[in-house]
Amino acid sequence: MPHGYSPKKGDIKARLNRIEGQVRGISKMVDEDKYCIDILTQISAVNSAMKKVAVGLLDDHMRHCVAGAASDEEKGAEMLREASAAIERLLKA
Amino acid sequence: MPHGYSPKKGDIKARLNRIEGQVRGISKMVDEDKYCIDILTQISAVNSAMKKVAVGLLDDHMRHCVAGAASDEEKGAEMLREASAAIERLLKA
Amino acid sequence: MPHGYSPKKGDIKARLNRIEGQVRGISKMVDEDKYCIDILTQISAVNSAMKKVAVGLLDDHMRHCVAGAASDEEKGAEMLREASAAIERLLKA
Amino acid sequence: MPHGYSPKKGDIKARLNRIEGQVRGISKMVDEDKYCIDILTQISAVNSAMKKVAVGLLDDHMRHCVAGAASDEEKGAEMLREASAAIERLLKA
Repeated sequence: MPHGYSPKKGDIKARLNRIEGQVRGISKMVDEDKYCIDILTQISAVNSAMKKVAVGLLDDHMRHCVAGAASDEEKGAEMLREASAAIERLLKA
Repeated sequence: MPHGYSPKKGDIKARLNRIEGQVRGISKMVDEDKYCIDILTQISAVNSAMKKVAVGLLDDHMRHCVAGAASDEEKGAEMLREASAAIERLLKA
Repeated sequence: MPHGYSPKKGDIKARLNRIEGQVRGISKMVDEDKYCIDILTQISAVNSAMKKVAVGLLDDHMRHCVAGAASDEEKGAEMLREASAAIERLLKA
Repeated sequence: MPHGYSPKKGDIKARLNRIEGQVRGISKMVDEDKYCIDILTQISAVNSAMKKVAVGLLDDHMRHCVAGAASDEEKGAEMLREASAAIERLLKA
């Protein structure tokens, strides 16, 4: 069974590739002794971008839970428990 | 004048390289249709690791502020204002 | 129609009352010129406690979405969109 | 020795009193079975307001560190270590 995020895969991949480039850029800034505050700004940008990817994945997951619950209530409930735990981890990360 | 984080540059670079690898790993997980909750766990790990880098940079920046303020009070105050603004951005990111 | 969190109302109320007391305690610490770092520790505790309440509410909301979607797909989808937006706001707050 | 935040005490107290009222309002919303998503919005507002108080306290603390370090370097360094630890806790809270 394909996962909930499959249709949006291209978009998610594009975001992650951009984030990877941002992290590499931060590494380069450190190499070049750029001003620390500017590096912190880039770190904030990466974390925001990561959270956007996370919200997109969660959204698809929840949609999948709802669809899944129609055919298998037990499985739907289990997926929701996992979603709540994932949200809790994200809120602390 | 070298920035506050220069002595720890190697450690910061190593952390950033690891984070870059983690982001690439997440991208691969999406490619391979891995379970969305497992991907969210990896995203939380990246954000936590990024925040650790940020705290390290901030710590060095503040140390530098204190040292700088001894010779130039105006400059020290400006650096602290920037640090506060950076902390505020991080807390929202 | 009662909301998803109704059965747990007592637990949520107890947590919120405790948080209200914590905020009042922080106010008192400021009055008494307590050490700023100790106040920051209390602020972190309040925000963590608030996020726990939020995760509990979200969990119930999602459960409700799933149940609701069984009888009204359109409504279920709308509730999920709201949940995603709420998660996004929490992650920035 | 008065703490760094003393001059701004009135402003901080006013913010905390407002937050206390917001938490009480959230408790009332739960009592009245308000829509969960609206409650989550209020929780996000409380956490944002709390973080603003935290940034204000940190800003004063850092200013104090700088001033303190002029007369006692050891003490200034210790205060900075505490500030970094407090920032790390806030970023996870």
